[in-house]
Amino acid sequence: MSIDLKNVSVIGDEFKASKFIENLKGKEPVFICTMSNTMTATVPGITVAGANPELIKYTPPADVELVYYGECKCIPGVPATPDGKPTPAIITMSALKLAEVPFFVVEAGCEVKPYAPYISLNIPGPGGNIQTGKALDRGVVEKSIGYAELLGRNFADLADYLVLGETLPGGTTTALGVLMGLGIDARGKVSSSMPDNPHEIKNRAVEEGMRAAGIQIGSLRNDPLGAIATLGDPMMISVVGMALGAAPKVPVILAGGTQMAAVVALISRIRPDILNNIAIGTTKYIVEDPTSSIQWLIDQSADMPIFGADPGLGKSHKEGLRAFGHGFVREGVGAGGATLTAMLKSKGKITTDIVRAEIERNYERIVEAKLRES
Amino acid sequence: MSIDLKNVSVIGDEFKASKFIENLKGKEPVFICTMSNTMTATVPGITVAGANPELIKYTPPADVELVYYGECKCIPGVPATPDGKPTPAIITMSALKLAEVPFFVVEAGCEVKPYAPYISLNIPGPGGNIQTGKALDRGVVEKSIGYAELLGRNFADLADYLVLGETLPGGTTTALGVLMGLGIDARGKVSSSMPDNPHEIKNRAVEEGMRAAGIQIGSLRNDPLGAIATLGDPMMISVVGMALGAAPKVPVILAGGTQMAAVVALISRIRPDILNNIAIGTTKYIVEDPTSSIQWLIDQSADMPIFGADPGLGKSHKEGLRAFGHGFVREGVGAGGATLTAMLKSKGKITTDIVRAEIERNYERIVEAKLRES
Repeated sequence: MSIDLKNVSVIGDEFKASKFIENLKGKEPVFICTMSNTMTATVPGITVAGANPELIKYTPPADVELVYYGECKCIPGVPATPDGKPTPAIITMSALKLAEVPFFVVEAGCEVKPYAPYISLNIPGPGGNIQTGKALDRGVVEKSIGYAELLGRNFADLADYLVLGETLPGGTTTALGVLMGLGIDARGKVSSSMPDNPHEIKNRAVEEGMRAAGIQIGSLRNDPLGAIATLGDPMMISVVGMALGAAPKVPVILAGGTQMAAVVALISRIRPDILNNIAIGTTKYIVEDPTSSIQWLIDQSADMPIFGADPGLGKSHKEGLRAFGHGFVREGVGAGGATLTAMLKSKGKITTDIVRAEIERNYERIVEAKLRES
Repeated sequence: MSIDLKNVSVIGDEFKASKFIENLKGKEPVFICTMSNTMTATVPGITVAGANPELIKYTPPADVELVYYGECKCIPGVPATPDGKPTPAIITMSALKLAEVPFFVVEAGCEVKPYAPYISLNIPGPGGNIQTGKALDRGVVEKSIGYAELLGRNFADLADYLVLGETLPGGTTTALGVLMGLGIDARGKVSSSMPDNPHEIKNRAVEEGMRAAGIQIGSLRNDPLGAIATLGDPMMISVVGMALGAAPKVPVILAGGTQMAAVVALISRIRPDILNNIAIGTTKYIVEDPTSSIQWLIDQSADMPIFGADPGLGKSHKEGLRAFGHGFVREGVGAGGATLTAMLKSKGKITTDIVRAEIERNYERIVEAKLRES
């Protein structure tokens, strides 16, 4: 393969993975980022996707603005953790710009709209805190998943493959919720934006939600839309729906970490026949994460290749970026899938070193320059 | 040319037109319909794009639902004139389905949202009645035209060419307004959905608007965005913006009648260098309309081919459809551009006869079956 395997780790059947990748090299992708909020992110300690709790609702719009414009519009600077680690959108933006990948945004229940065009699925607002056992109105889930499916079908007519990312603070907890509802005991397996993965807080939130909804692990095994409505989030409506619409026609890369395990589990309960046209594209940091297990999570629902692309930040000479290589942030806004897509579209001409250099350039321009200003 | 010229009338330089067409045959288009409202449609006698004034605001969402699903969701039946002539969306839908053309919707200031996914440009509501001399907030025009440009750029990376249609009741009057503001005396030249084109009512509305804004014909010659804000409508923000983003990269077909003359005039004042990558795709009914003159209107701003595709309805055995061939409705929802696109994408295999047969089948299913039910 001319995609340098030093730059991409592969989990799963090697023949299958190689076939999937070979099929996409040099082809024309579209990257679609779903932006969402869930009130689950307000549970103390669950997420650091925002410098403080009030700022979390600005993270999704600021992320997509960063990818569109190379800078945020709705906040100064870029989204960051409370201790200043920048959003992974800086990876996504750098990779997509390098490979000139067309970029679209789907708005699925955001609190704050971006200063940019976006596709609406008519989801009225953020998902509820799943501690209440009520994440979304079931009618909304059913209607909007149909809209997303239509959208996926139309994008599949335009692009050779779809890459579906997301920005949703708190999303690994709702992923855990849906996996549990579907009968996959994912406790201790989902990833985190923090090196110290707060599994206990996530487990407790999901267990409270299950109690509130009067269900047990696996109760929603045969009701995937019910699992989204009870313990999920609006991002799932969008990404599951688009995959359902697109994967019967073209390959789909789910660009995300363990949140995409919930998406795969949902698809496996709705249309398992399309799973062979879907793969996971994430970062090396997720694939190698000792505090979570994407492989185990995916294996529960599908035999599907998992690609872990390396944006090379472990070797960055910028301390703020090196953190990605040391257990911070790890993934988000489809950073890993975007890196993989840049490598695929360029037939391997865009390497880890090139991606890292571009990220460093953007980091200097966007993060360091702003720090100097203030 | 293998596009049978019996099916498409051409106005303009034949060599240029032929080159434009040859370049697109068999290529992959995307059809993007902008849905808008302007309160100008409430001026009595200005439009029949709705069975009664209260229903006019449902026409844009119902039109795009018809194209997406083959049936409307927000109203029973289909949009129609007070005397029962069906919406031209039935032509658009039939042509796009025949040729399997991917379809997207941009929502630009609609009163009622469709039961379907749509792209938002964050335009807060319908355009004002231009009799007041205030159609839109200038800040909204500037910001949202930038969003539309971004969108056009991204679609241009995905498709070989863009086909931009619109559904906007009252749109020929705002077109007249903008043309007048830009110094093109279009009185008596814009088309109508009625055989008796109510030029006097349109002229009066525009003249009142100019008086209210304190301007003369041509006052906004050098201020195209000001012309939209004063006498235009939100559809123009979307279509002009997308053309500005896309035409530097790929050909753009403006799918509409004399409303698109205002779009061309605006582009000619913003980026005249891209006009050579743009053409008008409309119906034979507009090109041959004795009550308007698209050729004269376009000639004032650009040397651009005008294609008039024939959906063949003059020979339909359905009376309700034959009306299109006799001065009713004529164009809308990009009907002519969609017909042209179906012919182009199929390299001429889809002919007027095939389009008419498909429209008749859909008319039986959607309009006649409903009539029998009621």
